[in-house]
Amino acid sequence: MPIAYITRRERFNAAHRLYNKELTDEENLTIYGKCSHPNWHGHNFDLFVTIKGEIDSKTGFVTNLNNISKLIKELVIEKLDHRNINLDVDFMRGKIASTENLAIAIWGELKNPIETIGVGLHCVKIQETENNWVEYFGD
Amino acid sequence: MPIAYITRRERFNAAHRLYNKELTDEENLTIYGKCSHPNWHGHNFDLFVTIKGEIDSKTGFVTNLNNISKLIKELVIEKLDHRNINLDVDFMRGKIASTENLAIAIWGELKNPIETIGVGLHCVKIQETENNWVEYFGD
Amino acid sequence: MPIAYITRRERFNAAHRLYNKELTDEENLTIYGKCSHPNWHGHNFDLFVTIKGEIDSKTGFVTNLNNISKLIKELVIEKLDHRNINLDVDFMRGKIASTENLAIAIWGELKNPIETIGVGLHCVKIQETENNWVEYFGD
Amino acid sequence: MPIAYITRRERFNAAHRLYNKELTDEENLTIYGKCSHPNWHGHNFDLFVTIKGEIDSKTGFVTNLNNISKLIKELVIEKLDHRNINLDVDFMRGKIASTENLAIAIWGELKNPIETIGVGLHCVKIQETENNWVEYFGD
Amino acid sequence: MPIAYITRRERFNAAHRLYNKELTDEENLTIYGKCSHPNWHGHNFDLFVTIKGEIDSKTGFVTNLNNISKLIKELVIEKLDHRNINLDVDFMRGKIASTENLAIAIWGELKNPIETIGVGLHCVKIQETENNWVEYFGD
Amino acid sequence: MPIAYITRRERFNAAHRLYNKELTDEENLTIYGKCSHPNWHGHNFDLFVTIKGEIDSKTGFVTNLNNISKLIKELVIEKLDHRNINLDVDFMRGKIASTENLAIAIWGELKNPIETIGVGLHCVKIQETENNWVEYFGD
Repeated sequence: MPIAYITRRERFNAAHRLYNKELTDEENLTIYGKCSHPNWHGHNFDLFVTIKGEIDSKTGFVTNLNNISKLIKELVIEKLDHRNINLDVDFMRGKIASTENLAIAIWGELKNPIETIGVGLHCVKIQETENNWVEYFGD
Repeated sequence: MPIAYITRRERFNAAHRLYNKELTDEENLTIYGKCSHPNWHGHNFDLFVTIKGEIDSKTGFVTNLNNISKLIKELVIEKLDHRNINLDVDFMRGKIASTENLAIAIWGELKNPIETIGVGLHCVKIQETENNWVEYFGD
Repeated sequence: MPIAYITRRERFNAAHRLYNKELTDEENLTIYGKCSHPNWHGHNFDLFVTIKGEIDSKTGFVTNLNNISKLIKELVIEKLDHRNINLDVDFMRGKIASTENLAIAIWGELKNPIETIGVGLHCVKIQETENNWVEYFGD
Repeated sequence: MPIAYITRRERFNAAHRLYNKELTDEENLTIYGKCSHPNWHGHNFDLFVTIKGEIDSKTGFVTNLNNISKLIKELVIEKLDHRNINLDVDFMRGKIASTENLAIAIWGELKNPIETIGVGLHCVKIQETENNWVEYFGD
Repeated sequence: MPIAYITRRERFNAAHRLYNKELTDEENLTIYGKCSHPNWHGHNFDLFVTIKGEIDSKTGFVTNLNNISKLIKELVIEKLDHRNINLDVDFMRGKIASTENLAIAIWGELKNPIETIGVGLHCVKIQETENNWVEYFGD
Repeated sequence: MPIAYITRRERFNAAHRLYNKELTDEENLTIYGKCSHPNWHGHNFDLFVTIKGEIDSKTGFVTNLNNISKLIKELVIEKLDHRNINLDVDFMRGKIASTENLAIAIWGELKNPIETIGVGLHCVKIQETENNWVEYFGD
C-alpha cells in the first residue's frame, strides 16, 4: 500500500523563560537576552505532528486523525496549555525551556503511543513566532 | 546544474463524504463520525504540487511554472472545483474520498504529464483544514 | 465605563448549492454558474461574531468570551458543521444558501441570546474563501 | 484633502495572568478558568494601531508611518515585549490584565503622542489568538 | 431588505518608488528613506474592495460577486499587475505613488462602474505588507 | 546530541524583471510573459533559511538564532530590501533574476558564514507569492 504523511496542528499558549541555572545571571543575559527576563514571557505555540504510514484500504486513512489529535491533546497540550513551561511541565523538568528541547521532549512523549497504534512518528515541529520554528525528526 | 524544488499552490472547493460502501452505516459512523454525514459536507482544499529539476541556464527556471499551473488546472482542478468528490470525479470513482486517497489519485493524474515536460514530480500535498494535511511522495 | 468590541472566530465545514427553486435550471446556471452544481460543493467557512459592550470593572471583560463561544457553538456551529446548508439546517430552510442569507440567519439566531447576557451583537462576518466575505451589522 | 485610515501592526510576546486580587482564588478560577493559572501563561500578541487623517499633498502620506511605528515601539512594545503584563508594565499597574484593559491602556499611552504629530488615533486592536481579538475606538 | 457588506480580494504585484519630483533628491531621501530608491522596489499588493447594498430576494446576493471581480480586474488589476506604478498606470500619472494615493485613485476608477450596477462602494483597502495597510471610505 | 532543524524567516521587498539579455525581446516575452515587462514589477519576498545541527546542552540551542538572523540581514536582506534585483545586487550580477537563481545565489552567500559558526545550512526557500515558492538544498 502507498505510504503517506499526515500532519495535525494543535496549539498551546504558555509562558517560559530561557535560563540555565548552572550559569550566572550575567551569562544567562548574554546568551538569552530578553528571553531570560526573570518574570517570564510567553507565546502562542503551534505544534505540528507528522505521522507516516501505509494507507489502510478499508478506511482510506493512514490512521484515524481524531485518535492522533486526542493523543496529542492528552499527552502534550493539556500539560502545556495555559501553563509555565519551566515550572509546570513534568517532561520539561530540569531542562532549558528552549524550543529545541521542547520539540525533543514532545517527541519523547509521543513516539511510543503513536507507534502503538501502528504508525510512525515522522516529525515534531514547533512554531514559536511567525519568524521562528524548530523541527525534530528523531535523529 | 543545481537542482531546485518548485511548489505551486492551486485551490478547489468541493463536497465529499467519508464512506465505505462495503461497511454498514453504523460501522461507517464509528470510523468516520460526522465526516460520514449522508448529505455531504465540504472544504476549501489547498493543493500544493512540488516539482523537482535542474535549473535551465537559458531561462533561469526549473520549468515555466505557468505550464505546471495549466496542467494542474486542466487535469485536476477543473474536475474537483465546485464538485462532489464522491460523485463527480472520474479519478476518484470507487475510492473512499479520504484526503490520503485524493492525494494519491492526484499524483497518478499528474506524474506522467509533469515528467513529459522534463521535470520530476516530488510531492502532492493537500490541506483540508488549517489543522490537517496529507503529503504523498510517490512511495 | 469604556466600550470595547470583542470578536470570536469559530469555524465550520459545510456543503451547499446556490439555487433558487422558483427559477429554471437554466436561469440558476446563468445566475450562479458552477456554484449551482446539483451534486453540491463545499467550503471551510470562518464565522466571526463581534459583540460590543462596556467593560465590567470587576472582571476586566466585556463578557466572558467562553460563554459567547459556547453560545455560537450550540446555536450555530453544531447545526452547520459537517452538514449540508440547503438540506440540514433549520434556520436556512426555504432560503437560498448564499453567504449573505447565511450571515443574516446567523444574526437572527444569535441576537437575542447574546443580548440576554447583557452585551450587544455588533457584526456577523462569514468568510467563504480567502477572496470573499460578507458582513452584516443588523440593518 | 481626502481622509484615509492607516494601520500599522506591531508584535509583542508576553506573559500574563487573569486575576482580580480583590476576589478569592476560587472566584478567580470560576471567572477566568485556566487563564488564572498562578504560574502565568503567555501569548504572541498582535497590536494593530489605526490612525486617521488628511493626506498631505506634498508627501502623499497621512503621516510618515515610520514615525508611528517608532512611537508605538518606544511607548508600548518596549514595555510589553518579553515581559510580564501583570508585573512589569507601568501602564497596567493595578489593572486586571485582560485584553480589553490592555487595549484601553495602550490607547491612553498613544493618544496624545499621535495627536501631537497631527493625526487622529482611530482604533487600537489587540489580537491574542487566531480566534480572539479586542478593538477599542476611544468611546 | 437587509443591507450587507461584501468584500472581494484581488492581488497585484507591482514596482514603485516614493518620490515627489518637486523636491530635491535629498528632501525625497529624508521623507521617504529607502522607499525613494531610484531603481525601484516592489510589493505583492492585496486590494480589498467592499461594496454595500440590499440583498436581492431573487438571488440571495447583494450583487453577483463575479461581476465585481471582473470590474476590478479590468479597471484596476490589469493596469497595475506586473507593472510600474509610477511609469505605467494612467490613473496614477503625476501623483506620488504612495499607498494612500493609490487607494484614492482606485476608488475613483471603481466608484461609478460599481454604482452603475446598483450597489454602493464602501471601502477600498490596500495592504502593502503584512504590517501596513490603508483604507479609504470616500471622505 | 540530538539534531534539530531551525528555520528563520526574513522578508524583503524588491523589484525585478525576468529577462535574458542574450535573447530577443520577443523571445523574452514568449518565455517570461508579463514578468519580462521592461519597467519592472516587484514582490514581497519571504526568505526562509533552515539550519541544521546538534543541540548544545549548555544553551539548549542548535545555535543562537539572533546570530543567524543578523547574518541573513547583513549578507542578504540589506542588499535586496527596497532594491532592484537586476540592477543593485552584487551577487545577482549577470544572472537571470528568477526565484530559482536567487535561491541559489543566497545559498552561496550564506553557506560559509553559517558553517563558520558551527552549524549546517540545510535549505534556502524563497516565497514569491502565496502561490509560488522555490527551495534549494545545495545539490
